[in-house]
Amino acid sequence: MATAIKIPATAEDVDRLMLDLGHAARAAAAELALAPRSVKDKALNEAARALRESVPAILSANETDLAAARAAGRNAAYLDRLMLNPSRIEGIAKGLEAVAALDDPVGDTIARWTRPNGLVISRVRVPLGVVGIIYESRPNVTADAGALTLKSGNAAILRGGSDSHASSVAILGCLKRGLAAAGLPEDSIQLVPTTDREAVGAMLRGLGGTIDVIVPRGGKSLVERVQNEARVPVFAHLEGICHTYVDAAADLEMARRIVVNAKMRRTGVCGATECLLVDANARQDLMGPLVKALLDAGCEVRGDESARKADPRVRAASPDDYGHEFLDAVIAVKTVDGVDGAIRHIARYGSQHTDAIVTADQSSADKFLQRVDSAIVLHNASTQFADGGEFGMGAEIGIATGKMHARGPVGVEQLTTFKYVVRGDGQVRPG
Amino acid sequence: MATAIKIPATAEDVDRLMLDLGHAARAAAAELALAPRSVKDKALNEAARALRESVPAILSANETDLAAARAAGRNAAYLDRLMLNPSRIEGIAKGLEAVAALDDPVGDTIARWTRPNGLVISRVRVPLGVVGIIYESRPNVTADAGALTLKSGNAAILRGGSDSHASSVAILGCLKRGLAAAGLPEDSIQLVPTTDREAVGAMLRGLGGTIDVIVPRGGKSLVERVQNEARVPVFAHLEGICHTYVDAAADLEMARRIVVNAKMRRTGVCGATECLLVDANARQDLMGPLVKALLDAGCEVRGDESARKADPRVRAASPDDYGHEFLDAVIAVKTVDGVDGAIRHIARYGSQHTDAIVTADQSSADKFLQRVDSAIVLHNASTQFADGGEFGMGAEIGIATGKMHARGPVGVEQLTTFKYVVRGDGQVRPG
Repeated sequence: MATAIKIPATAEDVDRLMLDLGHAARAAAAELALAPRSVKDKALNEAARALRESVPAILSANETDLAAARAAGRNAAYLDRLMLNPSRIEGIAKGLEAVAALDDPVGDTIARWTRPNGLVISRVRVPLGVVGIIYESRPNVTADAGALTLKSGNAAILRGGSDSHASSVAILGCLKRGLAAAGLPEDSIQLVPTTDREAVGAMLRGLGGTIDVIVPRGGKSLVERVQNEARVPVFAHLEGICHTYVDAAADLEMARRIVVNAKMRRTGVCGATECLLVDANARQDLMGPLVKALLDAGCEVRGDESARKADPRVRAASPDDYGHEFLDAVIAVKTVDGVDGAIRHIARYGSQHTDAIVTADQSSADKFLQRVDSAIVLHNASTQFADGGEFGMGAEIGIATGKMHARGPVGVEQLTTFKYVVRGDGQVRPG
Repeated sequence: MATAIKIPATAEDVDRLMLDLGHAARAAAAELALAPRSVKDKALNEAARALRESVPAILSANETDLAAARAAGRNAAYLDRLMLNPSRIEGIAKGLEAVAALDDPVGDTIARWTRPNGLVISRVRVPLGVVGIIYESRPNVTADAGALTLKSGNAAILRGGSDSHASSVAILGCLKRGLAAAGLPEDSIQLVPTTDREAVGAMLRGLGGTIDVIVPRGGKSLVERVQNEARVPVFAHLEGICHTYVDAAADLEMARRIVVNAKMRRTGVCGATECLLVDANARQDLMGPLVKALLDAGCEVRGDESARKADPRVRAASPDDYGHEFLDAVIAVKTVDGVDGAIRHIARYGSQHTDAIVTADQSSADKFLQRVDSAIVLHNASTQFADGGEFGMGAEIGIATGKMHARGPVGVEQLTTFKYVVRGDGQVRPG
């Protein structure tokens, strides 16, 4: 069942191999577009069953990857991203079942209206077609991304990291068992069988027009390469430089809880707040309690003069600390001149991802929510809510900060597009 | 008021000029995003007034363009696309007023839901930002495109054909009078002031990240260049290779009216049917009456053997006649094996634009509508309805056949995107 890594001899071989994948995906997509929900759900549930029945085989493949990574001197965090165990495999299986439980957007009528001439026009949801996912390290993405694309009626071409290839192959085998059990095309989910770097280049060029969108999941250099080279649409975010602005009219206790959660709940996620903005015009002392709460929670604070005055543990912020994604227990702090100052700072330093205001003043909140041009803006809540699950989407394939087609969490619905269906009874257009 | 064509000395000068346009547009867009509908409508209505007051000046500028075109030996159709007269100028003014009468999508709440933790999440419409329109010949596009982008809260950068530059400049002057009267930024609508070809290249590269989407309006070579070179999203269609399939279960009289209208109403529009598909399995003679009706309407018919048997005026179709956009009173005709045959033919030869089925059999209709992967699919109506106005959008900036963000007619709503607005009262995310 495992697909051996084909070693193409030349760049031409890689191109041909990749084009074949693209055409196979396109053919599978034409069938998947018509698959009823029950069939797709059966594939997902059967895949979950196959996973549970294959734990020893998956762990064995994973050990292959881990041994190679250890031999290459990878650190503990790296190995942890690679590692599977029975509990994590169960989590992957549960994830497949959770996607099966989601509503199926394909075929939904988004809008319908009747024209004066009697034509009935509907906007109907259809799958995008073929989704390419390029990812690093985490073998669970093989299942997560494969599940979301399948549920939305798309074919998937997965290009995982070479360091987790054996694990991904083992997981893919379980997905394919699910596809077969449901009678869906084998090529609905394909894993790129070569670790040749040229394969990624071929995907970014669009595989001869067969790929509709690419989703990169991984570190900054991967996303940057994809955004720079891709000739097809991309759903991605490069950085999550998220801000929490605490306004003069904020409730201090609320602000403290929100700020600490926004930074410290999980420092490595894209929705973690990287910069705290504090209103210069507050009558109460906001800076002191906020800075202390962060420091006491184990966060390093790099701030301006006002922040440093609040606590001797605060270090001086350098200019590079603003607009910087720490992905760590480090935060930059700046004083700003009210909500206008916060809006200006975010416009300059933000990454259009997620930004929040804490205030009891509704008009300041409205101004912030309207003028901050980010995918997600929050009032009196933590930026850590930037997540498809938290939004009620059930699952997401990533978060997009671009403005086209999908913005914010990319769930099943965002992997679809629409067509216009026009029903008449003989209408012809005048003149 | 007319902007002289700046002649940049070097490629660097062009780049700098274009980047300045981009930054000015981006700054204007930040203001336009907040402009209330009444202000945008005032600009449009005042621009319409300015147009009506400027007829002699516009005609004079237009004569400059026409004289140059005549001297260059342009043919009658070309001159007609360039030509303005009082009636056409009135049409442009009315077009501005029609856009003012449209609903303003900006700020609309597309969806709203409350999470179990009490967070209220809304998806709210916002402008895309900066729209680049690259067009040929027709000076009215200066006003049409400028109006739609303004109404949707976007800034516009217009790059018209050099052959209509003087006319476009005169029209732009009227638009800017409208902007000034409404207190909107002067740079809300900018015309690229150089005819240097490099200026288009700079737009296609995105003007330093300031352009959000490009809309090409013109012939195939323009659209092809844009689609191949653009590093930013594009709303476009390359070809309108539209089909009308007449099924065995079609009402013959309905089919005749629809087919003749779909081909002959206006042969130069992208929604004109270029290929008639006729069900081989019809008991009645469909081919004969359909072919004759087209021939009698003045259409040249190029068909397969069955079509040629129907009438001696039918010429033999060459393989290149299928999948060909004639944009003329010429049609290709082919016999296909039922709705499945029609679907296969369209999948191979179509351009994913607009395709129609004529039948009284609902299940054949449903199959066709579901399986034909085009922006617009019609049952028992003419493909000539592929038009924003006919869809009830009021106006369109073009028709898109891509699947991302906008598909089919691109109206005011399609020039917007959305952001998530999350309102809480102190929620923090667990674990």
